Amino acid sequence: MTNRAALHSKNLQTLFYPKSVAIVGTNKVKGTVPGDIFINILHAELNGATFPVNPREKYIGGVKAYKYIVDIPDEIDLAIIVFPSSVCNKALEQCGQKGVKAVIIISAGFKEIGGKGLEREKELLEIANKYDMSFIGPNCLGVINTDPLSRLNASFARKFPAEGNIAFLSQSGALCTAVLDYALAKNIGFSKFVSFGNKADISEIDLLYYLMDDDKTKVILLYLEEITDGPGLMQAARDVIEKSHKPVLILKSGRTSAGASAAASHTGSLAGSDEICDAAFKQAGIIRCDNIEEMFNIAIALAYQPLPKTNNVAIITNAGGPGVLTTDAAIKQGLQLAQFSEETTNTLKRSLPTTANIKNPVDVIGDARADRYYAAMSAAFKEKSVDGVFVILTPQSMTDINKIAEEVAKIAHEYDKPVYASFMGEADVASGIKILQKHQIPHYILPESMCKPFYTAYMFDRKIKRKLAEPVIFTDVDKEKAQALLAKAAGEGRSYLPEYLAAKVIEAYKLPVVANGFATSAEEAGSIAESIGFPVVMKVMSDDIIHKYDVGGVILDVNSKEEAEKQYVNIFQNVNKKMPEAKIDGVFIARQISAGTEVILGVKRDPSFGAVIMFGLGGIFVEVFKDVSFRVAPVSKKAALGMIKEVKSSKLLLGARGRAVLDVESVANAIMRLSQLALDCPQIKELDINPMIILEEGEGCYVADTKIII
Amino acid sequence: MTNRAALHSKNLQTLFYPKSVAIVGTNKVKGTVPGDIFINILHAELNGATFPVNPREKYIGGVKAYKYIVDIPDEIDLAIIVFPSSVCNKALEQCGQKGVKAVIIISAGFKEIGGKGLEREKELLEIANKYDMSFIGPNCLGVINTDPLSRLNASFARKFPAEGNIAFLSQSGALCTAVLDYALAKNIGFSKFVSFGNKADISEIDLLYYLMDDDKTKVILLYLEEITDGPGLMQAARDVIEKSHKPVLILKSGRTSAGASAAASHTGSLAGSDEICDAAFKQAGIIRCDNIEEMFNIAIALAYQPLPKTNNVAIITNAGGPGVLTTDAAIKQGLQLAQFSEETTNTLKRSLPTTANIKNPVDVIGDARADRYYAAMSAAFKEKSVDGVFVILTPQSMTDINKIAEEVAKIAHEYDKPVYASFMGEADVASGIKILQKHQIPHYILPESMCKPFYTAYMFDRKIKRKLAEPVIFTDVDKEKAQALLAKAAGEGRSYLPEYLAAKVIEAYKLPVVANGFATSAEEAGSIAESIGFPVVMKVMSDDIIHKYDVGGVILDVNSKEEAEKQYVNIFQNVNKKMPEAKIDGVFIARQISAGTEVILGVKRDPSFGAVIMFGLGGIFVEVFKDVSFRVAPVSKKAALGMIKEVKSSKLLLGARGRAVLDVESVANAIMRLSQLALDCPQIKELDINPMIILEEGEGCYVADTKIII
Repeated sequence: MTNRAALHSKNLQTLFYPKSVAIVGTNKVKGTVPGDIFINILHAELNGATFPVNPREKYIGGVKAYKYIVDIPDEIDLAIIVFPSSVCNKALEQCGQKGVKAVIIISAGFKEIGGKGLEREKELLEIANKYDMSFIGPNCLGVINTDPLSRLNASFARKFPAEGNIAFLSQSGALCTAVLDYALAKNIGFSKFVSFGNKADISEIDLLYYLMDDDKTKVILLYLEEITDGPGLMQAARDVIEKSHKPVLILKSGRTSAGASAAASHTGSLAGSDEICDAAFKQAGIIRCDNIEEMFNIAIALAYQPLPKTNNVAIITNAGGPGVLTTDAAIKQGLQLAQFSEETTNTLKRSLPTTANIKNPVDVIGDARADRYYAAMSAAFKEKSVDGVFVILTPQSMTDINKIAEEVAKIAHEYDKPVYASFMGEADVASGIKILQKHQIPHYILPESMCKPFYTAYMFDRKIKRKLAEPVIFTDVDKEKAQALLAKAAGEGRSYLPEYLAAKVIEAYKLPVVANGFATSAEEAGSIAESIGFPVVMKVMSDDIIHKYDVGGVILDVNSKEEAEKQYVNIFQNVNKKMPEAKIDGVFIARQISAGTEVILGVKRDPSFGAVIMFGLGGIFVEVFKDVSFRVAPVSKKAALGMIKEVKSSKLLLGARGRAVLDVESVANAIMRLSQLALDCPQIKELDINPMIILEEGEGCYVADTKIII
Repeated sequence: MTNRAALHSKNLQTLFYPKSVAIVGTNKVKGTVPGDIFINILHAELNGATFPVNPREKYIGGVKAYKYIVDIPDEIDLAIIVFPSSVCNKALEQCGQKGVKAVIIISAGFKEIGGKGLEREKELLEIANKYDMSFIGPNCLGVINTDPLSRLNASFARKFPAEGNIAFLSQSGALCTAVLDYALAKNIGFSKFVSFGNKADISEIDLLYYLMDDDKTKVILLYLEEITDGPGLMQAARDVIEKSHKPVLILKSGRTSAGASAAASHTGSLAGSDEICDAAFKQAGIIRCDNIEEMFNIAIALAYQPLPKTNNVAIITNAGGPGVLTTDAAIKQGLQLAQFSEETTNTLKRSLPTTANIKNPVDVIGDARADRYYAAMSAAFKEKSVDGVFVILTPQSMTDINKIAEEVAKIAHEYDKPVYASFMGEADVASGIKILQKHQIPHYILPESMCKPFYTAYMFDRKIKRKLAEPVIFTDVDKEKAQALLAKAAGEGRSYLPEYLAAKVIEAYKLPVVANGFATSAEEAGSIAESIGFPVVMKVMSDDIIHKYDVGGVILDVNSKEEAEKQYVNIFQNVNKKMPEAKIDGVFIARQISAGTEVILGVKRDPSFGAVIMFGLGGIFVEVFKDVSFRVAPVSKKAALGMIKEVKSSKLLLGARGRAVLDVESVANAIMRLSQLALDCPQIKELDINPMIILEEGEGCYVADTKIII
């Protein structure tokens, strides 16, 4: 933890639980941010004292006002700055002089407007540093803490949300108001609610670490437009998940490139490639959501109900159609419909009418009342093979909706298995839904919407039960040698390493390069070829030649020492004929492997996440179908195997339709070594191993060609 | 049109607009189907007279009751039967005697319970036939017609929906109640609302044709569990779309096999393969929906607003975050963000504050009030490159939500371009949403949800503007020859045709089979091979041999007449050695083509849709990746080209990454001819052309192997 992060950790506790708050720049004008924010704090009835600060007012909202913060006689825990950006920095300086440690800067007009705004924002940070202050913002909606110990509404949101165990963090302030309104209508409560705006000082990473230890928070939601420190975000999410078992859900905008350009014009953010973001989130155990609704659909399942132990569900419905639609959606999502035991089947047969469907999905039939739902639910809950129950209701004329809602709530509390509900329609079922929500039964308008949250909860349960895969650190690598080779090439002004040097770099990390050597005479070529074993391939090495094949600079199938000697001379002759001006360094000679399947490994640098490893199958699969996978370095063995299996064409390596199973294990090892090289040598901008040839299981894989861009 | 269909067409008009209705089997018991349904009709204030029929009551709901329908002195247009299934048939017989032409049978206890129920249902149809009656049901919720000329609520649904231009047809009654409730909450009105249950007589096809000519209906929604007559459904949808320009949206359950088995246990339906259903709907121009919400999201866009001329939208928002999320979703969906002209940009610059984003997506900033929204909207509507506008609103403290909603409604009526809105959150924006709904501005809780309806509306506009692709009928085919070959094989007790006969069948339809012949002596083999040209491949033909290669029954690369003669003898020797008991018919000799890319064509029979044509690339693409496409026969040229382009691997035929462009046109022709063969010869159960070899553009394609199962 950096000093600053440690400071934030302490100051955030003060920020959320202040005993005294100064609102710097507030005024008496209702319907404006500075005016409303003080009233919001007052109305929430903070567990502490509030002090309006305004150079021109004696009192605001019936409370004595002070000219400057330094004039307040009491100690101040938290200052909220709502001044125009031009005087914000001065106000922050005064907060520092006053000894305030926690600040929220609501004001806009900083990084997001560029130019002068950027400078102002930089200065804010310098002032905060000087006084050991931490601040949220600028350009944000503020902070809400529903904990009765605090009841802080340091925001310009109209509504103070209900207490709950979901924390919501957002880079966009406007989205916060919509989310608060949405949550209110769905009776969703929050523990902490933070709009962190430009995150000039306190970032989502600091907030994640704070919420990790916050007893009031069970699930963390995060809306992000810009990822500044990808590895830091991944580490924070990993820590939160591993240490506190709290799921982290992120909605990240800028998925498409047009979206990213809109993001750039909006908050000056530059979105990284979306596939890399997907891969990084998956690696860190972050649950990525597609939209606000999906985020809350999943959040309420995780926050309200126990995690399912398996993916086996029972569906109970009073209408066949929705039962079938939900079964479709469940199977598509990767859930299983539990098979009932004979005992359960008999219980259902006894308690339901003969026209009912007693198989899963159980159809209790349109005229079912609460007693029949209760009988079906208790049979399902008792059934061993069921680890979760979906209750579907359509409003028929005889359906006692509220009673059924109460039975669902009652039975849910008796078992340690999750239950979700979908009371279909809206107007008729509204009161029943309220009852479900009051008892923390996740409710979904569409029954199909129960499936993804259930699956996500199940996967999260698996995740926290498994030990985190630690990346292996290989100690047999020769970092110095790789560094020296790269430094030498850079010293010579090269922008890339020729193959004979690139091979040496990855050999230093024990990547399985085919046997090779570099010859500068015909005799040397002969003896190198002989020591390698035949057949060999011979390639001209010259900085001036891009397309070696076209100038006769590549000879395949060289089968004897004599032929190697002869071809060395031929290569020089070919090149001299076609490109007389080219300067030739020598000839690279390597063992030629013709059997096996080609794959491609690569390294790229992502602006948000740093070193990223790529994998794909050679030929059409990468070039035409773009069937590739990514992981952020370091890549654990599990992640390496995962990225291999993730590409669709990997079926061809894994024995599909009677094919041989190939040595995937050795490729995973190569990926891990490459990941370590990428982290150790940041001067490598891009690296391509193309192709690497995989042989059958146990026979390894071989790098046949390597490019390194520095 | 069959006689029965013509009859339904007439009787349906009576059914929806009856001047006199008898409710046969109703009673005084509230909260039951028979009791509620009469009250529902009364409460809706039908534009006609209602007559309760019950053998044991003198009056029901204050209205004189009759013992039997035949006792009613007036003529009866529509009878609704709610008796238990055991006496339904008798009641229907009496309806016939009374001269009733339109009947709704609500009662359950027919096909869906199997056994005796099946028989009863068959009998219902016989009775209806005898009296030229048409009936809806049995096992349904009934029928609603909101037209003020009728106001019929012949259903046991609690609510009479609002008048509107959306028709909803459903095979599931329970889903109807949920849909009515859902629609009520969203202020969605209906023209006709029909639960057609077991569709023993009137089917969704009859209803589609009725609604085609119904002035009150603009969009048709259909929930289906079972497709009995796939081609009929496709034709009806095509006719509706082409003749009345009304979109047809279908939600079809039983997508996954587990869903299908639940459907089977529920309504005795057997779902066909889902991919075939997808293909068939696409061919017919049917819009397939994934769930109820998506169906209504799309329906309101189509029903309320003009169709967009292009896919260029403008987004207007008061919050950056949702603007970015919506841009992401729009691009992903295939929409374009319109580029504003200089004039529009200047207008926006003049009318919006400097902090606003005047590029698309336009951000009018959080403190925007109605005037600013109006300015941005009118600039966008006037802009030539914009063909639709998305208005996003988040509730900020200064947002005048209702005023903005009214401005949206006002401006929408001034332009012939669609506008959709998303007022985010729920509680705060509820009154604004009501205003939008009242003015038929499609409203979506999530702004991202605007994209799919817009895209669907745009594609529908393109669809109705283009002429329907008519399948070509080839007149140069020899149907008699194909039939004779198939009949002969069937006569010989064969279950499949050997390759030399299969080749003749498809040659009769001018599919481009490689030059070939069938030899029964070595001399014949030599002369056939010579006439074909070399190299040839020689294959043993024997009903006893499944794996020809394993017994030495296939010889490749035969390059001369002499070799062909010799290999003919070799093949016999090889087979005699390995399978002495095998009876050999002769040797099939065909030109061997080694260049080119392999594709596979196939014919299958689907229980719902009949003859289905399959296409895929050979080798791993079909076998490992299952990258195939389907179309229901007949396949037009456009559809044939579409099914080729639809498979992902078709990039390899279309010149990806510097590859040669192959003769896709000739493959499309082969598909069309195969489609005609499949329709002409229903005795072909399955057919595989594997491989067909495509050469470069203009050079055609060749069938190298054919299997026909009869």
